[in-house]
Amino acid sequence: MAPLTNGRVFFNAYPEGYPVPGKTTVYDATETIDLDTVPLNGGFLLKTLELSIDPYMRGRMRPLNKTMYAAPYEIGQVIPSFGVGVVLRSENSKVKVGNHIYGLLEHRQYVVRKDLEGLQVLVNPSNLPWSAFIGVLGMPGRTAFMAWKEYSSGRRCGETVFVSAGAGPVGSLVIQLAKLDGLKVIASAGSDEKVQFMKDIGTDVAFNYKTTKTADVLEKEGPIDIYWDNVGGETLEAAIDASRINARFIECGMISAYNSGHTFPIHNFGQIIGKSLTFHGFIVDRLREKWEEEFYKTVPPLVASGQIKFKEDMYNGLESVGDAILAVQKGTNKAKVVIHVADE
Amino acid sequence: MAPLTNGRVFFNAYPEGYPVPGKTTVYDATETIDLDTVPLNGGFLLKTLELSIDPYMRGRMRPLNKTMYAAPYEIGQVIPSFGVGVVLRSENSKVKVGNHIYGLLEHRQYVVRKDLEGLQVLVNPSNLPWSAFIGVLGMPGRTAFMAWKEYSSGRRCGETVFVSAGAGPVGSLVIQLAKLDGLKVIASAGSDEKVQFMKDIGTDVAFNYKTTKTADVLEKEGPIDIYWDNVGGETLEAAIDASRINARFIECGMISAYNSGHTFPIHNFGQIIGKSLTFHGFIVDRLREKWEEEFYKTVPPLVASGQIKFKEDMYNGLESVGDAILAVQKGTNKAKVVIHVADE
Repeated sequence: MAPLTNGRVFFNAYPEGYPVPGKTTVYDATETIDLDTVPLNGGFLLKTLELSIDPYMRGRMRPLNKTMYAAPYEIGQVIPSFGVGVVLRSENSKVKVGNHIYGLLEHRQYVVRKDLEGLQVLVNPSNLPWSAFIGVLGMPGRTAFMAWKEYSSGRRCGETVFVSAGAGPVGSLVIQLAKLDGLKVIASAGSDEKVQFMKDIGTDVAFNYKTTKTADVLEKEGPIDIYWDNVGGETLEAAIDASRINARFIECGMISAYNSGHTFPIHNFGQIIGKSLTFHGFIVDRLREKWEEEFYKTVPPLVASGQIKFKEDMYNGLESVGDAILAVQKGTNKAKVVIHVADE
Repeated sequence: MAPLTNGRVFFNAYPEGYPVPGKTTVYDATETIDLDTVPLNGGFLLKTLELSIDPYMRGRMRPLNKTMYAAPYEIGQVIPSFGVGVVLRSENSKVKVGNHIYGLLEHRQYVVRKDLEGLQVLVNPSNLPWSAFIGVLGMPGRTAFMAWKEYSSGRRCGETVFVSAGAGPVGSLVIQLAKLDGLKVIASAGSDEKVQFMKDIGTDVAFNYKTTKTADVLEKEGPIDIYWDNVGGETLEAAIDASRINARFIECGMISAYNSGHTFPIHNFGQIIGKSLTFHGFIVDRLREKWEEEFYKTVPPLVASGQIKFKEDMYNGLESVGDAILAVQKGTNKAKVVIHVADE
């Protein structure tokens, strides 16, 4: 078979402010690969199918500092993100041709991997789309499920949760888990289309924070017992103001600060004492061991039966990675962003 | 018996900034009482012995707002604080002459109370000074013990705790509980005399934050696994910067903000995510039911045996209440402030 183009995406420059497509990351089509003859050296050859674009990736686009938990992207290297690939050839006894593999994958059409370190072979008895495994069944879904289980303790029918960025893959699963637990759910997002999706999945009070003031909604619909924070900044301050005694704050992300070079100061943090508030920051990797088994037992059947819904915003091809990264940082995406690299 | 002066302290005006002795609170000696004939109406007559002056009292010196947990002092009313009194006469079958009573007492030399609501009869088998029951064995001691037990979870030999305001009645008990648990203790206070006391009770690294930069000490002696916060503000930011992954923050007080009319913004709160930090705010009353029995089983014997030490800064008479309140807010007190109202 003649060599094929093996497209890839390089990390090219640290951005100031928002990432710039074609500058921060660059698509390159100069590499070729012969799928039949590329040496495997005991490993296996993957064809990349779906790649995930997530908010946290912005944190990897800067030099190492003490608040970071993921290693920086290296300039001139192919960027990795979570993805799903299918095995075309294998010399590794643990990996079969046709297996679907999940984990941090290079942004490259085809890649040879030595072993399964950091990867897992997916099982998909309900024949769900493979893109689901980088969203509701992947890192974002695990983030929502594991931290909800770990930190929403004491949740009861009749409590109220507020979820920011509720149309994303994390927020939308949190909303649905909270509804299954019997809570009243208030959720915000930045477009009417996202608000509609939040309503479709059962949100009691869904609003567009760009046209309605968060503090006003919480004043009217609160007080809140749990805040799932994906954004930080003024929204977090509004949630503190609207919180009830013993409220729990689950600090998942602070996208409001990712592109500004600094985190917004929190002016009303002193309320933590008088209201006996608890704040839990977390990285999902650190909850994985405790909750992974329950996650895979619980969530895929709910997704397969349609009880848990998800929505995707599909981008086609590695050429679109730069635009997709920017859309996720700006919030102009319509739902969970998936780079559809190839059909099987 | 001829009527005696019954001195008392009024709350006179909301302060702006620091409370002003003689203006914020006013001592008044115009009331008299005849101890033999004052009607009890089924209640009992208390002679006030010791009254506690604590940082939280500043919060009661402002109109009600949503961050408050204690009711405001009322202008023109006698102020209450925790104290110990002895029963001189009683018509209540649950209260005997000679009983010592603990609870929120009016700042008045003699007072008639109807029943034990909000009060408790003290037992003192080791014959400790009654003032100890408003410090290490009173609300401050309970604050330290109950929240340490509740929130320092996962504490292990080899962990490091940082305690601010470590020479006060709360901080000094936290230091000693942490040493009993095998932790390394770093602690700060605002005078060399306080630093010496912190060393005397076993603090590994005691420093004067007015002459040594907190961030520098934590950089050298940290990272920290637990921060017991009595002060908020820049000290809290330094603790966040110096915290290890999975560190716990016990938010007990924020005296840096009590007299400024606003809480200081926290600029580096975003680290909560990458470091998986947990912040617990609390009010000791809400922990009381769970931990009170263990407190009284554990702490008084340790105090009686000298394993747990405490230090007091005695002020004489109700005339000194205004000065004492100001000293506690400014930190110019030498140790736990006690108003010694009368000998038995």
